[in-house]
Amino acid sequence: MTFDDVKGMQIAYEEALAGYNEGGIPIGACLIHEDGRIIGRGHNMRVQKGSMTLHAEISCFENAGRLPASITSKCTLYSTLSPCTMCTGSALLFKIPRIVIGENKTFIGGEDWLAKNNVELINLNDQRCKDIMTKFIKEKPELWNEDIGE
Amino acid sequence: MTFDDVKGMQIAYEEALAGYNEGGIPIGACLIHEDGRIIGRGHNMRVQKGSMTLHAEISCFENAGRLPASITSKCTLYSTLSPCTMCTGSALLFKIPRIVIGENKTFIGGEDWLAKNNVELINLNDQRCKDIMTKFIKEKPELWNEDIGE
Repeated sequence: MTFDDVKGMQIAYEEALAGYNEGGIPIGACLIHEDGRIIGRGHNMRVQKGSMTLHAEISCFENAGRLPASITSKCTLYSTLSPCTMCTGSALLFKIPRIVIGENKTFIGGEDWLAKNNVELINLNDQRCKDIMTKFIKEKPELWNEDIGE
Repeated sequence: MTFDDVKGMQIAYEEALAGYNEGGIPIGACLIHEDGRIIGRGHNMRVQKGSMTLHAEISCFENAGRLPASITSKCTLYSTLSPCTMCTGSALLFKIPRIVIGENKTFIGGEDWLAKNNVELINLNDQRCKDIMTKFIKEKPELWNEDIGE
């Protein structure tokens, strides 16, 4: 774990918390360049924007603006939760070489697909990330099921 | 090929053409429910919105609004071009059972991943879809490469 990993997961968690406080789904993400620059950050906007596609990672990429893969291929993607198939596919499209997640106890997304494509995946097993999802799912199980297509 | 397939690809092509006329990347998509309702339509908005994530299919899902998988799992997704990994992953997340594409001569996305997940994929080998991409790539090769992460 690097210094940037601590910073990246802190920002992703702050994004998740912001989502929770907005009445949304508390999953956050952050994109940090290998030179240390924060390229983007965002959180799930299903409730806030009535959007199916703005998962935390997509929201983060969207907030980062229009970037070529020459930049995104030098970034680490941070997410408080294991990325779903859509977000996994976006990371592959943008040639993200390294993904750091808060946890995968709540949900396991496309981890096998990342491994197959040699994307490094690090699970920080972060208690804050697990706790906020446990609390949220207990409060709004139907919203969580909707977000993962159940 | 069903009547809805003709309608769905026509709409997707009209979306692609709209994108071309806006100076954007001419790829379009459409979502049609098994009961015949048009659920969403959209086109690539990289240039128009300065967005990395609004590929045609994501744009279509975004325009469809917030829907549960109980609806999207009864839809066919139409796209003028073989969906990239991000759009493939979104189709899996939303449990789309059937995808009809205009062509995969210009680009082949996550077709192996769709097959592995038993998503039906039909290639209409549509000359209009191939022609508009050939014309666009000849005019703006750098924009096309940016969109597919090259």
